[in-house]
Amino acid sequence: MPGVPPTRFVYLGPESTFTEQALLTIPAAERGTRTPSRSVPEALDAVRQGEADAALVPMENSVGGQVGVTLDELGVGDPLVITREVVIPVEFVLAARPGTTMDRVTSVAAHPQASAQCRAWLRAHLPDATVIDVLSNGAAAQDALAGTVDAAICAPIAVDRFRLALLADKIADHPDAVTRFVLLSRPAPPPAPTGDDITSLAVFIAHDRVGALLAVLTELAVRGVNLIRIESRPTGEALGRYAFFLDCTGHVADARVGEALQGLRRICAAVRFLGSYPRAVPPGAVDRPVPPPGGLADADYADSAAWLARLRTDGA
Amino acid sequence: MPGVPPTRFVYLGPESTFTEQALLTIPAAERGTRTPSRSVPEALDAVRQGEADAALVPMENSVGGQVGVTLDELGVGDPLVITREVVIPVEFVLAARPGTTMDRVTSVAAHPQASAQCRAWLRAHLPDATVIDVLSNGAAAQDALAGTVDAAICAPIAVDRFRLALLADKIADHPDAVTRFVLLSRPAPPPAPTGDDITSLAVFIAHDRVGALLAVLTELAVRGVNLIRIESRPTGEALGRYAFFLDCTGHVADARVGEALQGLRRICAAVRFLGSYPRAVPPGAVDRPVPPPGGLADADYADSAAWLARLRTDGA
Amino acid sequence: MPGVPPTRFVYLGPESTFTEQALLTIPAAERGTRTPSRSVPEALDAVRQGEADAALVPMENSVGGQVGVTLDELGVGDPLVITREVVIPVEFVLAARPGTTMDRVTSVAAHPQASAQCRAWLRAHLPDATVIDVLSNGAAAQDALAGTVDAAICAPIAVDRFRLALLADKIADHPDAVTRFVLLSRPAPPPAPTGDDITSLAVFIAHDRVGALLAVLTELAVRGVNLIRIESRPTGEALGRYAFFLDCTGHVADARVGEALQGLRRICAAVRFLGSYPRAVPPGAVDRPVPPPGGLADADYADSAAWLARLRTDGA
Amino acid sequence: MPGVPPTRFVYLGPESTFTEQALLTIPAAERGTRTPSRSVPEALDAVRQGEADAALVPMENSVGGQVGVTLDELGVGDPLVITREVVIPVEFVLAARPGTTMDRVTSVAAHPQASAQCRAWLRAHLPDATVIDVLSNGAAAQDALAGTVDAAICAPIAVDRFRLALLADKIADHPDAVTRFVLLSRPAPPPAPTGDDITSLAVFIAHDRVGALLAVLTELAVRGVNLIRIESRPTGEALGRYAFFLDCTGHVADARVGEALQGLRRICAAVRFLGSYPRAVPPGAVDRPVPPPGGLADADYADSAAWLARLRTDGA
Repeated sequence: MPGVPPTRFVYLGPESTFTEQALLTIPAAERGTRTPSRSVPEALDAVRQGEADAALVPMENSVGGQVGVTLDELGVGDPLVITREVVIPVEFVLAARPGTTMDRVTSVAAHPQASAQCRAWLRAHLPDATVIDVLSNGAAAQDALAGTVDAAICAPIAVDRFRLALLADKIADHPDAVTRFVLLSRPAPPPAPTGDDITSLAVFIAHDRVGALLAVLTELAVRGVNLIRIESRPTGEALGRYAFFLDCTGHVADARVGEALQGLRRICAAVRFLGSYPRAVPPGAVDRPVPPPGGLADADYADSAAWLARLRTDGA
Repeated sequence: MPGVPPTRFVYLGPESTFTEQALLTIPAAERGTRTPSRSVPEALDAVRQGEADAALVPMENSVGGQVGVTLDELGVGDPLVITREVVIPVEFVLAARPGTTMDRVTSVAAHPQASAQCRAWLRAHLPDATVIDVLSNGAAAQDALAGTVDAAICAPIAVDRFRLALLADKIADHPDAVTRFVLLSRPAPPPAPTGDDITSLAVFIAHDRVGALLAVLTELAVRGVNLIRIESRPTGEALGRYAFFLDCTGHVADARVGEALQGLRRICAAVRFLGSYPRAVPPGAVDRPVPPPGGLADADYADSAAWLARLRTDGA
Repeated sequence: MPGVPPTRFVYLGPESTFTEQALLTIPAAERGTRTPSRSVPEALDAVRQGEADAALVPMENSVGGQVGVTLDELGVGDPLVITREVVIPVEFVLAARPGTTMDRVTSVAAHPQASAQCRAWLRAHLPDATVIDVLSNGAAAQDALAGTVDAAICAPIAVDRFRLALLADKIADHPDAVTRFVLLSRPAPPPAPTGDDITSLAVFIAHDRVGALLAVLTELAVRGVNLIRIESRPTGEALGRYAFFLDCTGHVADARVGEALQGLRRICAAVRFLGSYPRAVPPGAVDRPVPPPGGLADADYADSAAWLARLRTDGA
Repeated sequence: MPGVPPTRFVYLGPESTFTEQALLTIPAAERGTRTPSRSVPEALDAVRQGEADAALVPMENSVGGQVGVTLDELGVGDPLVITREVVIPVEFVLAARPGTTMDRVTSVAAHPQASAQCRAWLRAHLPDATVIDVLSNGAAAQDALAGTVDAAICAPIAVDRFRLALLADKIADHPDAVTRFVLLSRPAPPPAPTGDDITSLAVFIAHDRVGALLAVLTELAVRGVNLIRIESRPTGEALGRYAFFLDCTGHVADARVGEALQGLRRICAAVRFLGSYPRAVPPGAVDRPVPPPGGLADADYADSAAWLARLRTDGA
């Protein structure tokens, strides 16, 4: 963020989960204050009301599946913008009090979705263990520390935090799974373009016809703006109104993205700009920024604008 | 389902939540066995392995937000199909042991997302109460019954089930919110068309270009098949592959839906048919089946097929 | 044309044809010099070389069918722009030397396409007359005046010009047929927008794929620019290159037309601007200017541009 | 045409023009009768009324520019279908009575458009010669033979026919120009597919909106049917109705073309099938048949139809 960097951070709690782990990858957050929130809406409200400068919340593929909540909260209320995304691997570990060994583990605390994502590993390595549902990965680790269970499925951050012993790592059935978090702040000038940026939008359309969504995508496609993610959400505001949350390639400062945004503004019932920010490259992934399609770079826009000006004044 | 109706049902547990409430709206389930599952993947596995005939799991806008999990589970593994959808209002209630009155409530058990959805009500009516996080709406009701908390935010079903007193109903901040559940079974002949059906699909495309999604939507649009919902999901199978989960108007037995499906089959890396089933009309909603656009009814398809046959044999 | 109006006109000759009749509907031409040209290319060359200020040539549905020639000439060579269109009804008449009566007519001079367009009338009224092919409607009238034939199929202008007697009027089989002429000049500032204008373009694309033309039309459609006419022409310049001649609604000074033109400039191999000019309303026709679609007026463009500027500086 | 080949041919006259030259490239026409018609409508009427079996008329880029006439005639009246196309180079020659030499040529007879197409050559080689307008290339040759002019611009066929001397060949300014003719017959089973065919259509749409044409092209594009030519024509039948004449790749017997035709039939006010026939390769051109795009061959259609059948009966 240009100007003053945020110093007061909130995040979806509790402590010692993947969200806190993601937050610590942001240098300003490492130096600033970090306060857990009980829910995504509360985290966002803290920023809206000025009690915090920025909130880190999960956006995609998360353990808790709060994607829908986050999107819904961004679509209404006072505007917030994404200034950064953080992508981290979902690397579940099995942790226990120091001294515990695998052959002694008969009970495992886990968030229900965490245990679901490690089912194959549990069947193979702890077929007889009882799985105890708890409210969060952090709570699981705490229970292991307290000794009310033999072990916990949790995030790597909790191992160091609670000085637990690591019994097994990378126990998730899908080793490539990642979780995507976004850092939200009150509206502010977007970070400078990097050449590999994402622009997030909420567009509202009046009809449930495929033609309406086709029109939205066509506004993007004619300007060479690609789609990374799309999700439709019903809106409670009015019957028959649909919201689409879109993540697109490019930055609001790019000529082609700017023209596409203007086009959406003209044809949609409403468009909410949710930020332009650098694309996060997951650890280990090959970075592959997609250049704008031929003829759609800023220079091409400048050329066509100059040509049009000549047509309007000279006729050729 | 044609033929033998299912008798053994599983559902996302625990008991006494909205999912069980939704299951009880299905007559066959009311008569059959109903077993709670610890997670969506476990519920689906029970059906895949033949231990149950059908599973009811949340699909959209749910308290627990399991949408992503359900979609991801449907996109891979042995095929399952949706044979029915159930839409019920998310009507949270505040319940307590009989004899409890509002002015005595100082602690409230609730799932974190349930309390988040009732924040405004809690601020207005119980500003000083402590909210205790629990793992499910059912667990909240049980805690109220046990007296470890003064009251619980839970589903209406739990009030009767645990003989609780209803302190307040419709306490959710968004009174129109609904949750959508789907009933899944192993592949079987689809239920007969009703004239107001939904067809669900998972389509996999190789590229992250907006053009690829435009091509998918165009296959639908040219056949007058409308889109009700869309969600993109990253797939772990291969880098650069994208999955889109689509809910469309119409039934696989309709000529226009059949032609659209064939078109998708030809242009997509893969298409998984997730079922054709009657559209559920939420209680109190006005039913408004959308007729096929002009020229796209089965009779129009029959007419154009006869015309083409004449061109091929007679030239006119 | 802003500035000095043209005074030296050329037109597709010979004299006394529909083209001269169309030219006389232009006030400046009535006052200026009017020189017939032997062919469309010669008329255009006269303007290109500065020997004339403007050329009137047929563009559509003409007796001589020179559409293709006119288009091809506009697509190559030094640029010319259309500054006006003239639409006149194709009202063929049967004319003869004064004193001639219908029952005496045994020979009729006519351009082959003129007689073709009056076939039904000739069969009904002069079934036994011999039709003599001549090179133009003007030549037919001159032959009738000279007495080498009994009568001529010609344009109304020739009756007065040669003091012929009108034996029958409106003898064309299609009474609604019109011919469209365009007035061409060297590039100059376009005439001011009237709110009911046409913009003509030649766009060149590299491939013979339907996708390439779809891309061109999509650039127009997303800006609400409608298509009035389209014609593809092979280009001799290079194998595999295609030219499309498009007439669109709107004026180059309109925001939406300007943005569409820029879009075409970016995606096409080449775009040639052929002028923006008032739409001609055929005599007797109901004028029905098409307003820009909702959200696509200049004011909407200004609103969306202001919104984008705010997003770029303030983030909301 | 399968079955009995045509034996009675008509063609756009007069004799000794490019049209007759094109007709003689058809073996059946070489053996059958060949009758010149005075106009395209007359040629077509002869076939419609059974006086002839087939008519050869110019379709594109012709000297006389009759394209519009031919298209308009095909769009109305009793249906006719194209069974063959013939493409020949427009190789104008300068011919004269034997014994004439270039330095003696002071007058040249030519159709006005023929002389227009040879302007550069005439300026370079006969700058002082007078050009005499005549009604056809055939008439020019006859005038040269009769000696009323010194030389004629005409088609190669006229040189042999009238035993003229060839003073210069390939005198057209654009040496690559070709003319395209079509052979028309009453509706009959189309010729068998060759793998490199054209299907011609007239589609009528009710509105002048670009969206209507986009819808037409989209029906083709989603089936991988490419567009070779397009021309819009106003229709006299009803105000606001537009006709588009389309030439597409593929044969009506191809699965993808058949499905596209059915789609057009359903969305257009009317569709007239104008024939499927082998693509003519101009002499000297490299033949480059375009295979159907990936996934759109007949085998892909068969695969997707079988898949759909399984979905409908088994649900997977």
